[in-house]
Amino acid sequence: MKIMISGAAVLTMEQGSALIPDGEIIIEGQYITHVGPAGSVSPEQNFDRVIDARGMLAMPGFVNCHTHASMTLLRGYADDLPLMEWLQKKIWPVEERLEPEDIYWGAMLSCLEMIRSGTTTFADMYFHMDEVARAVEKAGMRASLSQGLIGLSPGAGEALSNSRRFIREWHGQAEGRITTMLGPHAPYTCPPDFLARVLDMADELKVGIHIHIAETRAEIEEIQQKYGKTPVALMEQVGLFNFPVLAAHCVHLTDEDIRILVARGAGIAHNPESNMKLASGIAPVTRLLAAGALVGLGTDGAASNNNLDMMEEMRSAALLQKVATMDPMALPAQDALAMATVNGARVLGLKDVGPLKPGNKADIILVNLDRPHFYPRHNLMAHLVYAARASDVETVIIDGRLVMENRQVLTLDEERIYYEVQKRAEKLVGAVRS
Amino acid sequence: MKIMISGAAVLTMEQGSALIPDGEIIIEGQYITHVGPAGSVSPEQNFDRVIDARGMLAMPGFVNCHTHASMTLLRGYADDLPLMEWLQKKIWPVEERLEPEDIYWGAMLSCLEMIRSGTTTFADMYFHMDEVARAVEKAGMRASLSQGLIGLSPGAGEALSNSRRFIREWHGQAEGRITTMLGPHAPYTCPPDFLARVLDMADELKVGIHIHIAETRAEIEEIQQKYGKTPVALMEQVGLFNFPVLAAHCVHLTDEDIRILVARGAGIAHNPESNMKLASGIAPVTRLLAAGALVGLGTDGAASNNNLDMMEEMRSAALLQKVATMDPMALPAQDALAMATVNGARVLGLKDVGPLKPGNKADIILVNLDRPHFYPRHNLMAHLVYAARASDVETVIIDGRLVMENRQVLTLDEERIYYEVQKRAEKLVGAVRS
Repeated sequence: MKIMISGAAVLTMEQGSALIPDGEIIIEGQYITHVGPAGSVSPEQNFDRVIDARGMLAMPGFVNCHTHASMTLLRGYADDLPLMEWLQKKIWPVEERLEPEDIYWGAMLSCLEMIRSGTTTFADMYFHMDEVARAVEKAGMRASLSQGLIGLSPGAGEALSNSRRFIREWHGQAEGRITTMLGPHAPYTCPPDFLARVLDMADELKVGIHIHIAETRAEIEEIQQKYGKTPVALMEQVGLFNFPVLAAHCVHLTDEDIRILVARGAGIAHNPESNMKLASGIAPVTRLLAAGALVGLGTDGAASNNNLDMMEEMRSAALLQKVATMDPMALPAQDALAMATVNGARVLGLKDVGPLKPGNKADIILVNLDRPHFYPRHNLMAHLVYAARASDVETVIIDGRLVMENRQVLTLDEERIYYEVQKRAEKLVGAVRS
Repeated sequence: MKIMISGAAVLTMEQGSALIPDGEIIIEGQYITHVGPAGSVSPEQNFDRVIDARGMLAMPGFVNCHTHASMTLLRGYADDLPLMEWLQKKIWPVEERLEPEDIYWGAMLSCLEMIRSGTTTFADMYFHMDEVARAVEKAGMRASLSQGLIGLSPGAGEALSNSRRFIREWHGQAEGRITTMLGPHAPYTCPPDFLARVLDMADELKVGIHIHIAETRAEIEEIQQKYGKTPVALMEQVGLFNFPVLAAHCVHLTDEDIRILVARGAGIAHNPESNMKLASGIAPVTRLLAAGALVGLGTDGAASNNNLDMMEEMRSAALLQKVATMDPMALPAQDALAMATVNGARVLGLKDVGPLKPGNKADIILVNLDRPHFYPRHNLMAHLVYAARASDVETVIIDGRLVMENRQVLTLDEERIYYEVQKRAEKLVGAVRS
């Protein structure tokens, strides 16, 4: 399939976030083969599809660096509650009852929502991950998938073996759209001896690690009490950072923690809305970026957000840093955009995903600029971060394939997904209540 | 015109935010005359229009308690700058050049954006307010309008006379959709002797006062230095609270300030996103509500937000209070919804606007629930606050009149507005640069 996109403003997100006011993009197979100004494509070429994108902005798709896709099943089920009551009385009892098919339909709803809001890649940690992989394959998305591992649970050894099987079976599948990581849940649920086994397996399988670190004050206190260290320092001691790491949250960090994360090149998934909603705290993103850390953005699961909207997440990240530092220049639009797109791809270790340039995978979204909140056109980058909304995403291309066009998702059956999710959610909640 | 809405879930926002899962609403002229469950309307009645709202949620329209509508002209013109540089080098030089026709088209863009995001009423403070009133009349919105007054400026006396003329001319116009207030800008721009003249006029004209109070730390320091008081205490001394007051921002408050605001029944417009973006601070909304204060929500102008999206503002308000107080139970969904709708109407002193009940003006929006982020249907109120987006608003009725239907705004010419706004913004910015 050879596609040309013409007439769009093209925000390549290459160095300096270059904007081509009237650009042309060529996609061949999975890859971008050309990005240039109007008239740069020779008129003799033939295309299977020419997309007239006048009035649109083309940009890299969003990369959601941390979510639990199937938790859409629990969206709105439990809000405005204290964290432990939320987890113990609400979330865990339902999660215990989740069947593989529930996980599949929860992930399908997630993929539908993500595609409709311009997300092309996500990093997921949950259980029954084969089901999530099936959903990703069907939806046509790109994803980095990790089976969640609770070192303290009786089935930890079996779950670890199952992770090996999952990684062997799925890594590189769906035409390479699926990659995998190991997913030890967190320092407080995975003690050092268990983490050592996880790291041995990471070495064996040559994969990275997706883990929650330093999300809440309670975690900091618990780890300090048990090990006399911060969670980041403990992970350094365990050898975690000898592997590529996707560290979710990193809300409560010392200067030394930041030094370690930067020195070891860890990728960080910042989840501002989940951290706000659960009252976990405000991650020191401004300090992290100043120190040279690699930071992407994530929504976390829909039970603590409650949507998977990266446009909104990007805006919340920028606004939250400004008020937290009392500095209106903190996390400017360009940095927030980079976190939500190209830097997110780096956080997931995806080498040929990111800026719109020849040789990169064609993960491209078209944003419809014909909206009141995009006028006047003083600054498109500022508009994207401070004024845009997810529904402005008109067309989504992933891996060179049209996945949504004119807001119609082409890979998924919306009505079926709604039906399945509603039925399953009612059953699950009914079972917990009775 | 007699309209029936059938098949919608109806969130009346009466005491306890009552939800009718399958409801019927009758509108006659400007008023709601019936709200009840399916089958409560006798089948013999005739209607000019029956709106089949199956799959929708009907709720009161949003009330944006504080904005500067015409500042949409400056959207994205200056972001990520220190406050004084933003004001002095960017905003003020353009504002000095604004002609009445610019104000009109800026307000038209604002009305378009507000209607498309479910806002039915707004409170505005700016200059050339006749132009804003014309735009409100044309758009079919409801608004409380105030001519901004800078007591320190040489033309203050003339502006005050002009306010009297504006109020006499416009109060109660547009079939009563337009009400007016006096708009002394802030304690630091309007000294006590000028405020005394404003209050005399408020007494003469029987109108309330729209004013910025305690927005930034710099203001607190300046007022403290000049008068040895907080801005709220100074306003109490001046006698401001003898009149109905719409106090915008109220970010930096002492316990005594809160006591005064509550005791005097002041209406407060909380503007979380503007306060975040300009790094003004986090208003103590949780403390205000606990003390019994009346708090509504506003977006502030589009130069510091940068949209006029009340769904987003509601979510930001709720999330920000949770993380600011480190309490996930702070500002629960129901309270955020009340701030954005019925309590906002009270803040503006609108007696027959608010909950969906017979006798109230018919300001109603229909939200399309057929969206991935509204599944599963565990809790519609939580979905509205934590997952909804403005584009979910499908239909808007203001004062009993259909103003938007199936996302088509019926009162405004979108293309003309885009054209005028873009042309004028380019001219203004070009004039400042040259």
